[in-house]
Amino acid sequence: MKANDNTAVLLLYCPDKPGILAAVTEFINQHKGNILYLDQYVNREEQVFFMRIKWDLADFQIPKEKIEEYFRTLLAIRYDMNFRLYFSDAKPRMAIFVSKMSHCLYDLLARYAAGEWYVDIPLIISNHPDMESVANRFGIEFHCFPITKENKAQQEALQLELLVKHKVTFCVLARYMQILSPEFIEQYPNRIINIHHSFLPAFAGAKPYHAAHERGVKIIGATSHYVTTELDAGPIIEQDVTRISHKDTVDELVKKGRDLEKIVLSHAVEKHIERKTLTYKNRTIVFQ
Amino acid sequence: MKANDNTAVLLLYCPDKPGILAAVTEFINQHKGNILYLDQYVNREEQVFFMRIKWDLADFQIPKEKIEEYFRTLLAIRYDMNFRLYFSDAKPRMAIFVSKMSHCLYDLLARYAAGEWYVDIPLIISNHPDMESVANRFGIEFHCFPITKENKAQQEALQLELLVKHKVTFCVLARYMQILSPEFIEQYPNRIINIHHSFLPAFAGAKPYHAAHERGVKIIGATSHYVTTELDAGPIIEQDVTRISHKDTVDELVKKGRDLEKIVLSHAVEKHIERKTLTYKNRTIVFQ
Amino acid sequence: MKANDNTAVLLLYCPDKPGILAAVTEFINQHKGNILYLDQYVNREEQVFFMRIKWDLADFQIPKEKIEEYFRTLLAIRYDMNFRLYFSDAKPRMAIFVSKMSHCLYDLLARYAAGEWYVDIPLIISNHPDMESVANRFGIEFHCFPITKENKAQQEALQLELLVKHKVTFCVLARYMQILSPEFIEQYPNRIINIHHSFLPAFAGAKPYHAAHERGVKIIGATSHYVTTELDAGPIIEQDVTRISHKDTVDELVKKGRDLEKIVLSHAVEKHIERKTLTYKNRTIVFQ
Amino acid sequence: MKANDNTAVLLLYCPDKPGILAAVTEFINQHKGNILYLDQYVNREEQVFFMRIKWDLADFQIPKEKIEEYFRTLLAIRYDMNFRLYFSDAKPRMAIFVSKMSHCLYDLLARYAAGEWYVDIPLIISNHPDMESVANRFGIEFHCFPITKENKAQQEALQLELLVKHKVTFCVLARYMQILSPEFIEQYPNRIINIHHSFLPAFAGAKPYHAAHERGVKIIGATSHYVTTELDAGPIIEQDVTRISHKDTVDELVKKGRDLEKIVLSHAVEKHIERKTLTYKNRTIVFQ
Repeated sequence: MKANDNTAVLLLYCPDKPGILAAVTEFINQHKGNILYLDQYVNREEQVFFMRIKWDLADFQIPKEKIEEYFRTLLAIRYDMNFRLYFSDAKPRMAIFVSKMSHCLYDLLARYAAGEWYVDIPLIISNHPDMESVANRFGIEFHCFPITKENKAQQEALQLELLVKHKVTFCVLARYMQILSPEFIEQYPNRIINIHHSFLPAFAGAKPYHAAHERGVKIIGATSHYVTTELDAGPIIEQDVTRISHKDTVDELVKKGRDLEKIVLSHAVEKHIERKTLTYKNRTIVFQ
Repeated sequence: MKANDNTAVLLLYCPDKPGILAAVTEFINQHKGNILYLDQYVNREEQVFFMRIKWDLADFQIPKEKIEEYFRTLLAIRYDMNFRLYFSDAKPRMAIFVSKMSHCLYDLLARYAAGEWYVDIPLIISNHPDMESVANRFGIEFHCFPITKENKAQQEALQLELLVKHKVTFCVLARYMQILSPEFIEQYPNRIINIHHSFLPAFAGAKPYHAAHERGVKIIGATSHYVTTELDAGPIIEQDVTRISHKDTVDELVKKGRDLEKIVLSHAVEKHIERKTLTYKNRTIVFQ
Repeated sequence: MKANDNTAVLLLYCPDKPGILAAVTEFINQHKGNILYLDQYVNREEQVFFMRIKWDLADFQIPKEKIEEYFRTLLAIRYDMNFRLYFSDAKPRMAIFVSKMSHCLYDLLARYAAGEWYVDIPLIISNHPDMESVANRFGIEFHCFPITKENKAQQEALQLELLVKHKVTFCVLARYMQILSPEFIEQYPNRIINIHHSFLPAFAGAKPYHAAHERGVKIIGATSHYVTTELDAGPIIEQDVTRISHKDTVDELVKKGRDLEKIVLSHAVEKHIERKTLTYKNRTIVFQ
Repeated sequence: MKANDNTAVLLLYCPDKPGILAAVTEFINQHKGNILYLDQYVNREEQVFFMRIKWDLADFQIPKEKIEEYFRTLLAIRYDMNFRLYFSDAKPRMAIFVSKMSHCLYDLLARYAAGEWYVDIPLIISNHPDMESVANRFGIEFHCFPITKENKAQQEALQLELLVKHKVTFCVLARYMQILSPEFIEQYPNRIINIHHSFLPAFAGAKPYHAAHERGVKIIGATSHYVTTELDAGPIIEQDVTRISHKDTVDELVKKGRDLEKIVLSHAVEKHIERKTLTYKNRTIVFQ
């Protein structure tokens, strides 16, 4: 999705019934919308229909500002749909949270600087000053909020103010070593993406590489998920793994893990930017 | 797809136009067919629409023997569709061709014996007697046709007779170390599945593990493809790879490769049995 | 290792000190043993030296029956070594335990029948009669011991008798759906190999595919480990994973998992047969 | 290997004979060198022994500047060894060659800036000005040498001058879209690392993603290798692959391939920096 695309993306789910797919595609076709991508999936166990559809607005006969209303009136109410509509001119705005490690941060910023993603990154937030020089290299505002038990609520309030001021639409925790409060998380439901350095649900919590080494696993992983109030238990967006052996020390796991973490996080962020993720009952549907 | 399913599967492709998806799904919905799976894909570069749709025939109002005609008249001609229609009571019939190695053969037969696949295996054909005991273990007819330059045409003619007699619908070359003649292949277009023991197009032809070792690759692979008259160049259905190191001798590559070969071949066969493959311009579309 | 090899394999570990590697290789070299493979590894954190060495006995000047004594006297005591010595004429004897599923069983038996492994399989034990026909196909004794809470101790005693009678050296639980008692396990320490159908330590215990589906993971796995008295917590020998998506039902996870399970189990069994595994502090060292 | 390590690394190969391993380890042990890592491998087919050994020089009794001479005199001549000796205070110096794409460049520079590697990067060379801003971000000298058929020899001569001036020990072609002349390559035998955007030997040469798409493969790859005078045919250091489907356009292959390319190249560079690679008959031995 790019600014000059002039496209719309619709994500929806609803109770499965005959005719939904035909109804939605006809709504777009008959008003001269050119469908560019369509991916649908029916969860047969729970009888739920999921869909992502993207179309060209160039000749679409319903004015952009009226599409949501028309779709709701003509289709969503009838089929009891839960839907979200996005336009290509609404560029997502992403804030990055970091602590002291640079590998995920660099991977995000390199893609951003290369123009790989249709996103703005107005600011980087940290609880430590270490990554300021990296932020400077890419000309991005950096704000440091040291966190203690005492000041946490206050510092989070200041962070939220900044996010609002910068019109941030989603946050990425790029190895941010702080647990966000439920109050913070509620402001960005399914819009805070974390990377956890294990193959969840194995080794949730602190020191997963130590735990993996102690357990003697032969494969390690990384998991990117939306943040919920339950630690490391939110809907998983992406995972990947790599093979290790008895010869690998904890330090070597940390090193091998870094490459997993950055790629898994960036892939999850990309899916989010491209409006390809939908959350249902603590699981994600990731469209193609 | 199982016999007692009473379902139909439709595979089609045609020039992409607005409304095809809606038209097909409505054709099924309005005659009270319950859609069970649907997967579609548009090749934007070539403007071709591809689709696989499976529906329950229990309440379908068009009689089974009329569906093909109605679909052709009402939709296929209008949209210039190339389509194939399958019913769940037409169980595929598979012949296995082997030479001296048993690993792929056992993997196919174990799945067959366990009832994993909706298929019949009436016969096994070989150019060597070695695998007869394996065929006997599973109670399957075994026919040995030793091949020489001189008798090849004649032996293939006898093989084809057997295939016709047993109403075989597709053939699986489970490490069959003979090149089929164009005349043979033409009888089963896109219905002969081969396993090649390399990551094609690397190391096509004979002795791929020797070639991989000689070249010093760090990963080896296996490729399952439909057989065409050009050696190892047919449409690829499935591939997989495994990591090797400088320590692996050719014998160890052969050993590691066996596990790849059998799994890749069985996955390709499964896709074929489930009517999930469609061939277009020497490439496969593999539906989900 | 094959019978006509006339080779020895030595597995050892001891506190790391300078000179161990040189001492062991010289012990073999100076008595005219031809070293065929050597793999060593030092755990620097715990200062432990691990080694596997295989040599040709053809010209070895120490008589076979004296090697253990000489090695103990000349090296093991001096370096405080824990070691095991194997000769190629002592063919391992393996019992397979199954319940109702055939995929792992077939994979083991196919390799056995093809002569891939240097092993004997004198018997198959089950708590259900279902797999008897598979055992018959391969001409292997099959014994059925239905297990209830009440008869478990008694049935295990009968099983152990059979194992002793058949001189079984290790057991393979090929999806055997019974928990062995500590008394049974103690008879075969680090000599009972299990396959668990998850990426341990995630989803230990019952119904891992259901749990994986519920959690919404994007990758599933299988784990082969030595059985200890703590359920699913023994030393891991081998793991592998495969990618899944939100579209996969529990049934599809079960199907995809089967291929993982059989390959992971067979690879673990092979490492054990080839005397390439060593257990230390609930972790395995798997030599090359 | 770090500057304050005060360690030595020895890489060697020679005709395999009994006693080499013992001789080398004793050479280090008896002069009070503490062995930190040892990896050895015997190519049985060609009867060649390969070894990498790293030891602490703190208490080593042979003066650093004499080690090479002593080792040659006492061991290398006797065993007909080909060897290379490295000391931890000789930090490798790496030049990066780029064209217009930034993904590999950023990945290399991010690791460098984070201090992950024991290396200096004094300069970046390009045939286009595009990457100058990236070089500036990391404070590294950037030199642009536009290449035409006419000026190629001259420009390469100037590049070589720069490399000599900056005491560059090896070069990394991070998607440098120029073929180096044999004259250039001869100056850095086995010291120029390239990344090719395919799973070599498949799709050597130009436009591998187009060729992969055309062929309809189900997996794409990337290959890092030492540059030799034969295009894309040098010793392979590292490869990796990722799964694709019929839905992926060439553009999507390019996107998926970028992540492969950068990780594969960085892993190969790391192995080189850590002195873990040895080249023999157009193949690499990559030690652990």
